[in-house]
Amino acid sequence: MKILEDRIRQDGTVLTGNVLKVDNFLNHQVDPQLMNELGQEFARRFQDAHITKILTVESSGIAPAVMAGLHLNVPVIFARKHKSLTLTDNLYTAKVYSYTKQVTNEISIDRRFLAADDRVLIIDDFLANGQAVQGLLDIAKTAQITVAGVGVVIEKRFQKGHQMVTDAGIQLEALASIASFEAGQVIFAQD
Amino acid sequence: MKILEDRIRQDGTVLTGNVLKVDNFLNHQVDPQLMNELGQEFARRFQDAHITKILTVESSGIAPAVMAGLHLNVPVIFARKHKSLTLTDNLYTAKVYSYTKQVTNEISIDRRFLAADDRVLIIDDFLANGQAVQGLLDIAKTAQITVAGVGVVIEKRFQKGHQMVTDAGIQLEALASIASFEAGQVIFAQD
Repeated sequence: MKILEDRIRQDGTVLTGNVLKVDNFLNHQVDPQLMNELGQEFARRFQDAHITKILTVESSGIAPAVMAGLHLNVPVIFARKHKSLTLTDNLYTAKVYSYTKQVTNEISIDRRFLAADDRVLIIDDFLANGQAVQGLLDIAKTAQITVAGVGVVIEKRFQKGHQMVTDAGIQLEALASIASFEAGQVIFAQD
Repeated sequence: MKILEDRIRQDGTVLTGNVLKVDNFLNHQVDPQLMNELGQEFARRFQDAHITKILTVESSGIAPAVMAGLHLNVPVIFARKHKSLTLTDNLYTAKVYSYTKQVTNEISIDRRFLAADDRVLIIDDFLANGQAVQGLLDIAKTAQITVAGVGVVIEKRFQKGHQMVTDAGIQLEALASIASFEAGQVIFAQD
C-alpha cells in the first residue's frame, strides 16, 4: 500500500535489532486519517471473506482494527493483556511471549463474545515473530471458531510470523511488507 | 446523547460498587459504528476549541479518541501505562491510581509529541474519580500545553472527577452522564 510505505520511509526509524520505530503515526501517536485508509484497505482485501468479528490485542492493534471494523461493519474485540490471571472461568486465554519486552503475558477474551459460527479476522499493527497472532489463533482454536484471515499493518516478512500464518493456510494481508533492513533503510517486498 | 443512553440501557450491566459494565460495546468488544458516531459528536462539541491534538490513555480510550481525531482531523496520542518506569529522560510521566484495580501505574508520553503551542483535548471512556484525566492534566502542566477540553463517553457525575475537571475551568463534555444507580438501573442526568 503506497501511502503506508511512503509514510514508513518518511517517518519510520530503523533501530538496532531489526526494530522499526513508527510511534509517530501508528503505536503511540496515531494518525486517524491514515488509520481510516488502512481500515478501508483491510475491508477491501477481506470483503469476500464473510467476516463476522475482528480480533486484536490491546493496545496498538486497536486503532487499525476499529477502522477495519467500521468499514467491514462488524464488532471488534480487543484481547486484554495481563501479567497473569487467577480467575479464568469465563475467559478464553492464551500465553503470548513478547520478544521486544522479553516477558510472557496472558491474553484473554470473554467467552460471551465468541460464538461457534463466528468467522474472525485477526488484525494487528505488526507481524514479526507472530506471537500475538499465535495467541489469538490459540484462542480461536479453543473457541472452535474459524479464522478467515489475518491482516497486519506492517509485516517483517523475514521473521517467522509470516510463514507461520501462511503455513496454517490462512489468508494473510500485510499493508506494508518489509523484506529487509539495509544500512538503516527499509527495503519493501516487491510483490 | 440519546443513542448512547439507549445503548447503555440496553446492553449495560450495573454491578455492585457503582460499576457499570459496558464491555460489549465500549471496552472489550467495541462497536465501531457507535464509536464513529461518538467521534462525530465529540468533534461537533469541540469544533470551536482549536484542538491541535487529542490525548488519551491506553487501552479503552483509544477507540473513541481515534474516531474523535478522525472527525477533528488531528493526531491522537495514547499515553502508555506501566507498572513503573526506570528510563524516563525522553518522557513526560504521571502517576495514576486505579480505584477499580487498586494499583498505581505510571503513564507516559514521549516528549517529541507535545509542543508548547498545542491545545489538547483529553478523551477517555469513563470519568469517575478522574484519576486518568488527572494524570493527563499533570503531563499537560509539565509540558506547558493548554488543555482545551475533556471529553468522556460516560461520566458518573456523582463521583469526584466531574467536579475536578469543571473546577479547573476546563470545558467538560460527557456523551452520557449518569446521575445515579438505583436498584440496578441507570439514572441519567437530565441536563
